[in-house]
Amino acid sequence: MSVHAGVMTDGTVLSKARERLLAVLGPDGVLTAPEEVAEFHDPYEGKDATRFQPSFVVQPSTVEEVRQVVRVAAELGVHLWTSSTGRNFGYGGSAPVDNGAIVLNLRRMNRILEIDEKAGYALVEPGVRFFDLYEEIKRRGLKLWMSVPDLGWGSLAGNALEHGYGYTVHGDHASAVCGLEVVLADGDLVRTGMGGIDGSPLWQRHKRGFGPSLDSLFMQSNFGVVTKMGVWLMPQPETFVTGSVVCHRDEDVAGLIDALAPLMLDGTIQGHPLITSSPEPAGGRPGFADDTVGMSAQQKLCAAFPPGRWNARVSFYGDTQVVRAREAALRRAVAHLPGVTVDLRSYPGDVPADEVHPHDLVPAGIPNMFLLDVMKRHLGDRIGHIDFSPVLPFTGEDAARHEAMVQRILAEEGLVAGFAWIATSRSLVGVSMVLFDVDDPEQAEAARRAVSRMCDEAERWGWSEYRAHPSMVDRVAAGYGFNDCALPRLYRRLKDALDPAGILSPGNHGIRPSARQG
Amino acid sequence: MSVHAGVMTDGTVLSKARERLLAVLGPDGVLTAPEEVAEFHDPYEGKDATRFQPSFVVQPSTVEEVRQVVRVAAELGVHLWTSSTGRNFGYGGSAPVDNGAIVLNLRRMNRILEIDEKAGYALVEPGVRFFDLYEEIKRRGLKLWMSVPDLGWGSLAGNALEHGYGYTVHGDHASAVCGLEVVLADGDLVRTGMGGIDGSPLWQRHKRGFGPSLDSLFMQSNFGVVTKMGVWLMPQPETFVTGSVVCHRDEDVAGLIDALAPLMLDGTIQGHPLITSSPEPAGGRPGFADDTVGMSAQQKLCAAFPPGRWNARVSFYGDTQVVRAREAALRRAVAHLPGVTVDLRSYPGDVPADEVHPHDLVPAGIPNMFLLDVMKRHLGDRIGHIDFSPVLPFTGEDAARHEAMVQRILAEEGLVAGFAWIATSRSLVGVSMVLFDVDDPEQAEAARRAVSRMCDEAERWGWSEYRAHPSMVDRVAAGYGFNDCALPRLYRRLKDALDPAGILSPGNHGIRPSARQG
Repeated sequence: MSVHAGVMTDGTVLSKARERLLAVLGPDGVLTAPEEVAEFHDPYEGKDATRFQPSFVVQPSTVEEVRQVVRVAAELGVHLWTSSTGRNFGYGGSAPVDNGAIVLNLRRMNRILEIDEKAGYALVEPGVRFFDLYEEIKRRGLKLWMSVPDLGWGSLAGNALEHGYGYTVHGDHASAVCGLEVVLADGDLVRTGMGGIDGSPLWQRHKRGFGPSLDSLFMQSNFGVVTKMGVWLMPQPETFVTGSVVCHRDEDVAGLIDALAPLMLDGTIQGHPLITSSPEPAGGRPGFADDTVGMSAQQKLCAAFPPGRWNARVSFYGDTQVVRAREAALRRAVAHLPGVTVDLRSYPGDVPADEVHPHDLVPAGIPNMFLLDVMKRHLGDRIGHIDFSPVLPFTGEDAARHEAMVQRILAEEGLVAGFAWIATSRSLVGVSMVLFDVDDPEQAEAARRAVSRMCDEAERWGWSEYRAHPSMVDRVAAGYGFNDCALPRLYRRLKDALDPAGILSPGNHGIRPSARQG
Repeated sequence: MSVHAGVMTDGTVLSKARERLLAVLGPDGVLTAPEEVAEFHDPYEGKDATRFQPSFVVQPSTVEEVRQVVRVAAELGVHLWTSSTGRNFGYGGSAPVDNGAIVLNLRRMNRILEIDEKAGYALVEPGVRFFDLYEEIKRRGLKLWMSVPDLGWGSLAGNALEHGYGYTVHGDHASAVCGLEVVLADGDLVRTGMGGIDGSPLWQRHKRGFGPSLDSLFMQSNFGVVTKMGVWLMPQPETFVTGSVVCHRDEDVAGLIDALAPLMLDGTIQGHPLITSSPEPAGGRPGFADDTVGMSAQQKLCAAFPPGRWNARVSFYGDTQVVRAREAALRRAVAHLPGVTVDLRSYPGDVPADEVHPHDLVPAGIPNMFLLDVMKRHLGDRIGHIDFSPVLPFTGEDAARHEAMVQRILAEEGLVAGFAWIATSRSLVGVSMVLFDVDDPEQAEAARRAVSRMCDEAERWGWSEYRAHPSMVDRVAAGYGFNDCALPRLYRRLKDALDPAGILSPGNHGIRPSARQG
């Protein structure tokens, strides 16, 4: 990543910006001390990093303050980098693509503005974490379930706007969004869909207004700063069943994937199965609670994974009879597969969180930190990761060659990675967390090189990553080459129209205005 | 609707455009004779209409021809009005909002480019009709089901791009779109999502690429001309159950709606129920096949409607056991409602079309013309309609006041209307077809006045129409008043960026570039 023309903002202007923003936000809203700003760097870049460097951090607490921050930035020509909570460590946390950005962090905008139990939705500010909404639902005794990613500390808005996934019925978080409020680069304030009508009761109930729908325009982009987001929630089911389809032999993945595909296509399986690959390490797999001393990296990693060479977590939610019938259909569909076992657990929908097995918290939509805790216990505090996350067709053949490619490159680079797919109706979303020791620059470099090589291979197959680390965004965007990169060129035209000076998150997903092309 | 500044294109320029377009498309691609162009007028405007007047019609048959048409239009400063098949008669057919438009009609682009049975999708050109895709699926013996609107003669793309609805699992047609190819106003050609990657196998399998998703930007807008569209299809179910929840008393609608809402929210009922209101006419309701001589308009209309004061058509698709469990859940949920009967029919998924009851064709995804045939038989050939189609919250209270308002205005204006709601998970989409005699200008005027009055009332409740007749688009758009009409202003900014001269369908959904503001 080269530093783009005009992007390095000089110290005098930044000083002036800090002064102006202090006047707008007060001392609580501006973080400048290095120890405070440190949290908004890429957590895995190491201490001597020279790229993805924020200058300082502002934390407005109201929409009006966001508008003023944007106006000050526009006036002074400094650039902002928006983050909600900034917890996507594998994708750089709050770190900006271009050095010198003022991080516009929205953690203090953490109000839950509305929860409608009957209509199944919430309206939240971008700083609301999965934990926060869950606690509020429980506090009010509402019969609503959420969809949460593997770690609950992140922001609902931040995750959804980055096309993140959870696992329950509304696990495709971008699709669960219904209505946004957005501050544009000139400080104007727009509400999408039915939100364009003052006081409409439909903003979070109906996804489209009159005219084009713009929710998805403000996802994975830098066209505005989202200050409110509607999100659909599912009603508490009568019964919840979750568990594993376990497949023990290396050669059976294609069959497992091909057996699951029609169950996703016809909606028998609800939400998004997480399918993990966990090669049997030399010396065998340790038990869940084993001491990790003397283990290989592969063994330690396996300790964090569910059993089986292949493990597909599947879930069913709803009316008890419907759930039982879905479960029966799944069992029939995989019964013919060699070496496959099905291990499901059933819960009443009103089960208390502390009676849910730790492995079942996520498919139950209960935010938690179990995965990180396990990984820290086995792998230590200094483990970083960079993720390779391609989308691929939902076929056994594609899945098998994807995994073979990743494992080959890992072996060649002497690395290990957590490997999983999130299943959607017609695609698999791969998530390979390539691990490295943050204090070992050589290993970190090898991890980045490995992910880059994986991208090369995926590109040849016509696949794309669904999201990427700041160091990878330009090259992933460059893969969209149809008709002389017509789609990236269209993104640039839209950026020119909405933010010609590139005030907002320049470089996000490779998008910059013409004035900031490198 | 006033004629906007600069929009009336003078005869000399149109002559020149005709000449240039003839050179591009040949004589088969340009219709200029009044009897040929007649079909592209609003079919219900009457013979002496002076508004919504096309100049002539072009029908390209390839993407390259569309690009050339757009370039010629841009060069000469004439404006186009895009239509696919132009069959939405209640919304004006192919008639342009601004007089003098050259209709860019895409009927000749009618190739089915791909159908993938395993992945459940098709890639079609905009002239492909519901009939065409159905016939091709049957011809190839593919186990796929479609979603179709009430009449099968329209275009899949035209319907989806206008936010149209069908009734099966993918009945929210805009949501079933996966990937577009679009010609921009300068002739550039873009593919959205994974289509931005040359030859990607993911274009129709995964809804998002890397960066913002633009599919919905090209729906209900005039930002481009869609030349290819991906659409998701459902696998042929093992069992298909459909039929009616019938409610016989006037006062029970709120209870019926409130009983159905949670079943839609939790997905027990699949697809989109059609809930019809059919007030018992004075003199009683005729039988389905009765001669209509001497009947009141209300009686004639009732003959085209299913039985009951309220009738909710519900459907279930899939694995037989799952379908039976869903059906049982529905029956339990409405069992307590007074005066309610449930009448369901079950079919095997491979049932031949000629063994499906005519009322069940649409929920079976089989395109047909049954509704129009029935209406013509009972109401004659000269009946036109203008539709009032608000979105409202899915509550019994809102539904009841909606219907009461419509029936009151109809009575005051001496009109009748077909009245229905299409149910979505959290909203109802009202469709009132207000009927009038095309040859009776006074009645036609009354119908337009009635719809205008209905819009006034809906606006006070914060509702919006989900689509509208050309005569209504500006006033519906004007209802989006939040922050000094921030959303319509944003649409204009996007239009300025993509089509500053307003070559493409100016006025569509109220969207015009700054240069064409009236």
